[in-house]
Amino acid sequence: MYRSHTCGELRLNNVSQTVTLSGWVQTVRKFGAITFVDLRDRYGITQLLFGEELNEQLDTNPLGREFVLQATGVVSERSNKNPNIPTGEIEIKITEFKILNKSAVPPFTIQDDTDGGEDLRMKYRYLDLRRNAVKKNIELRYAVNRATRDYLHDKGFMDIETPFLIKSTPEGARDFVVPSRMNPGQFYALPQSPQTFKQLLMVSGYDRYYQIVKCFRDEDLRADRQPEFTQIDCEMSFVEQEDIINMFEGLVKHVFKSVKNYDYNEPVLRMTYDDALWNYGNDKPDIRFGMELCNLKKPQHVLGHKQDFSSLINGANFVVFDNAETVIAIAVPGAAEYTRKQVDELTEWVKRPQIGMQGLVNIRCNADGTFKSSVDKFYNPEQLKAIAEAANAKAGDLILIVAGKEELTRKAASTLRLEMGERLNLRKADEFKMLWVIDFPLFEFALEDQDGGGAGRWVARHHPFTSPKPDHISVMINNSPKVEDLDKYLEHPYAGIKANAYDLVLNGNEIGGGSIRIFQRELQEKMFAALGMDAHEQQEKFGFLLGAFEYGAPPHGGLAFGFDRLCAIIGGSESIRDFIAFPKNNSGRDVMLDAPAEIALKQYNELHIKSAL
Amino acid sequence: MYRSHTCGELRLNNVSQTVTLSGWVQTVRKFGAITFVDLRDRYGITQLLFGEELNEQLDTNPLGREFVLQATGVVSERSNKNPNIPTGEIEIKITEFKILNKSAVPPFTIQDDTDGGEDLRMKYRYLDLRRNAVKKNIELRYAVNRATRDYLHDKGFMDIETPFLIKSTPEGARDFVVPSRMNPGQFYALPQSPQTFKQLLMVSGYDRYYQIVKCFRDEDLRADRQPEFTQIDCEMSFVEQEDIINMFEGLVKHVFKSVKNYDYNEPVLRMTYDDALWNYGNDKPDIRFGMELCNLKKPQHVLGHKQDFSSLINGANFVVFDNAETVIAIAVPGAAEYTRKQVDELTEWVKRPQIGMQGLVNIRCNADGTFKSSVDKFYNPEQLKAIAEAANAKAGDLILIVAGKEELTRKAASTLRLEMGERLNLRKADEFKMLWVIDFPLFEFALEDQDGGGAGRWVARHHPFTSPKPDHISVMINNSPKVEDLDKYLEHPYAGIKANAYDLVLNGNEIGGGSIRIFQRELQEKMFAALGMDAHEQQEKFGFLLGAFEYGAPPHGGLAFGFDRLCAIIGGSESIRDFIAFPKNNSGRDVMLDAPAEIALKQYNELHIKSAL
Repeated sequence: MYRSHTCGELRLNNVSQTVTLSGWVQTVRKFGAITFVDLRDRYGITQLLFGEELNEQLDTNPLGREFVLQATGVVSERSNKNPNIPTGEIEIKITEFKILNKSAVPPFTIQDDTDGGEDLRMKYRYLDLRRNAVKKNIELRYAVNRATRDYLHDKGFMDIETPFLIKSTPEGARDFVVPSRMNPGQFYALPQSPQTFKQLLMVSGYDRYYQIVKCFRDEDLRADRQPEFTQIDCEMSFVEQEDIINMFEGLVKHVFKSVKNYDYNEPVLRMTYDDALWNYGNDKPDIRFGMELCNLKKPQHVLGHKQDFSSLINGANFVVFDNAETVIAIAVPGAAEYTRKQVDELTEWVKRPQIGMQGLVNIRCNADGTFKSSVDKFYNPEQLKAIAEAANAKAGDLILIVAGKEELTRKAASTLRLEMGERLNLRKADEFKMLWVIDFPLFEFALEDQDGGGAGRWVARHHPFTSPKPDHISVMINNSPKVEDLDKYLEHPYAGIKANAYDLVLNGNEIGGGSIRIFQRELQEKMFAALGMDAHEQQEKFGFLLGAFEYGAPPHGGLAFGFDRLCAIIGGSESIRDFIAFPKNNSGRDVMLDAPAEIALKQYNELHIKSAL
Repeated sequence: MYRSHTCGELRLNNVSQTVTLSGWVQTVRKFGAITFVDLRDRYGITQLLFGEELNEQLDTNPLGREFVLQATGVVSERSNKNPNIPTGEIEIKITEFKILNKSAVPPFTIQDDTDGGEDLRMKYRYLDLRRNAVKKNIELRYAVNRATRDYLHDKGFMDIETPFLIKSTPEGARDFVVPSRMNPGQFYALPQSPQTFKQLLMVSGYDRYYQIVKCFRDEDLRADRQPEFTQIDCEMSFVEQEDIINMFEGLVKHVFKSVKNYDYNEPVLRMTYDDALWNYGNDKPDIRFGMELCNLKKPQHVLGHKQDFSSLINGANFVVFDNAETVIAIAVPGAAEYTRKQVDELTEWVKRPQIGMQGLVNIRCNADGTFKSSVDKFYNPEQLKAIAEAANAKAGDLILIVAGKEELTRKAASTLRLEMGERLNLRKADEFKMLWVIDFPLFEFALEDQDGGGAGRWVARHHPFTSPKPDHISVMINNSPKVEDLDKYLEHPYAGIKANAYDLVLNGNEIGGGSIRIFQRELQEKMFAALGMDAHEQQEKFGFLLGAFEYGAPPHGGLAFGFDRLCAIIGGSESIRDFIAFPKNNSGRDVMLDAPAEIALKQYNELHIKSAL
């Protein structure tokens, strides 16, 4: 028996009880003849008081930071109470103690504001995990895990484990592979997701499946990617898009309530992919704030309606707008007062290579109703007023306008909008706004080779198992995927096919995505063929799935959440690494383990492989 | 909306409601002008009645086995009720229906008693999973999963995910490895267990950790092994063996209650490793029945006491017993009536190469108190009676005696005991008996090379992180591990060191095992050194753990359950494969996927490896 209580549970009503605590020494403070020790464990911190009679013992066995200590004593009321911690009204008058383990001086301080840099903390991740700032992330992750399981269990979902040693079918992302010792020359692959298995489970009649499961992608790591990551993976049978949307926005609401005690009562907006692109410039809009984009060149989609503002800017001999494929305005609320220096800085900001604009046009909507712009030469106040109205700008706003090639400009406008939202503090970490983005295109056209499948071909925007919208199935069936003129791929019927797919977006991050699946063998074959897979390759890679579709596959669909990211956003952070107990760095290395590492020649031999270095 | 209800939920009180069901056609029976269809989904089976008016439609769209059908109709009371199924009092009078998907004729019948062989069922695992016999196993597995999580959550354990791409540190079992593309010439390993990570989490202060997690071992597969398997992995800080034993026998009792509604109220027996070997011949005794072994040659341990029966058999000039290192008797209850033919068959059974005995001595304890044996020439009735008393045989029992070399004979006696228990139906699948086996030796001595570490050396019986019993730490610290005379390794002080380790045994199967861990750097180094690891190798393989032990590691310990086996035993089966959704065969192949498989040359190149074939 190492302890009678934890360091987080003693209160005034325990006063005069004899207790034993075990934990880590957070601080040691000596005041004359007495010594105060803050003892820490997972559950809290309790103050220990070592009286004069223990001084000799303390001199022989001095306590240091992070020592593991077992101490017995009597709970007493503190004279100097600490209202900041739950145990702050009591302390333990120690009668005996034992050092269970010593500690070297940690390489950084075990505190919220640590002096350790990222690299040092990753090397000593077991110490970093002691810091309260990290611990509460790991605790939040478990709370999200638990709330997810509770919700899905109540809804009749079953956690069914799918295999990790599967078959390599590289589609899009690269597989991690595992050489087989028992099957010379052959390799397993680690799953990029349990996609085909969960579909097989639907064919098997399991009806509602889920897993919180590790997935693997051997990609070049961008800032916030991990080679192994966790998905909440779900699938349901006999459902339409509406059923799935209701089920899983319910899940996220339940998680908010359960983990953050946050009531998400408002309805979750749904927005088509097209509207998202037109109004926010990307397919995962942050709708915590407005500042929608206003397209001054092309007929603007506004929630399904079209408005043409091109007459407002055309014919003014402003060549920048006249020559641009796209001109997009954003009304930044209350920014009319920006100094010239501030506006110049923004102009430089959009001219950086990452954004790539040639410049930034601005129109100040002054509080007195007048306008002052960088294009006063070309547009009179009436025209500026009309543009301001189109951009939904009010007196006091600053309108920013970017112009150039379509896609680049849209991205620039999107990035600028998010940046202004950030600067104006409109993107609050403790506010949550979800929306569904729906009606994605089924295909994208790869003008350049992306994954070794060749250039000039259709690729699945979601994945090859996503069903077209019911109305669009015939378009797919009745047209050849062949694109004769690469420049006119947008005119090919396939470019207009919409998918029965949906993304759940939270605060500008895609936290989940899914689709209604193809469940007919013929349509699945047509899809594979459209992606450039011949019958032989289809059979070799996905023969089991095509086979399964012959024996009574039900209509089904599902969704997967990026669990790491979901936790990070609920925790108010942008970094998934902070929410993973043992993350890898940007080179895919675990610097604590020093992995990956070389293996023995014997291992190479057993696996029938040689180094090619 | 594909359905208003499932196929398992309609009852008499739904009569006259209009409902829509979706599911699979289990059977089609035509009686004159009407057609009965049993429609099946995960939740049950409901009878559909197609009246005469639908005949034409059924002729145009004939229904076959495993077709996916959506049908709407009115719930009606059945005249011919089926008391065997919960929906047996009603049927649905169908008004309209739609075939959602057709099915080819399945390659085997989707029934409990299927006509499909193992290979065929594995190839079409998605159909095999439809069979009720398999489905209830998968459901049981989820129920055990859920009950485990509920219990551990209530006890304050946190599910914390540990990484899958780690470092290869082959100890005992072989690692699966994963070549790293980004780190040329280096490999990750898949974890054989999260052992070191859970210990690090204890160093980090997480106090109570668990995971239901996949583990990987590249071993030659025996009958019931899988290259990937699942563990319930747990660890606790500030605990002694007693705390762990109480926590986890509580877990299994909770699972019994929750999953099987089985009250396991009796205390769980604890038995030392030595007693288990002496009385049952192995370290995972099945204690659902008696028939303990009686050692007639060596002083017999009986729950800690010693009894010497050697005088009962010595001095009778029976050379078989006189020359044998070990002579073990088992009293088979009520088997005195066995015919000569039955006894001959048993004799042949122990002489098979798998058992390897030279013969089988028998003593019939007749109902009238007389004895008849195969050694009447050597032992008179008085002597036979004394042996019978020693073996705890009663009138009507048959005593079976094996003799030979120590280890072989003990194993033979153990196997014979289990066989007789099986034959006498004493090993009931619905009876559950747990026991803890404790006080394992810390080391075993490898006379032959087992894993490339060399012959004639100590190996960890459990694993290198297991702590010796507190009293035995000094024996380890104060003695060199070196064994001068290999023949006398048993006399080396290390042979007597007991581990702070424990196995949980259920119905003769080890379902879990664990230990109190070493948490002091010096002792851990001593342990690694005892296993033949020099300082350099220690640092390279386990530097992170030794480092962690310098910064205040708490006393800790834990346990891991073999989740697949636990489920199988609770499900009354010996085969773990029946409880895994997508298992692999004995060559480590997934025959449904046809994995492992060859990979593309491009993949080899990217991974900096070549085939050695």
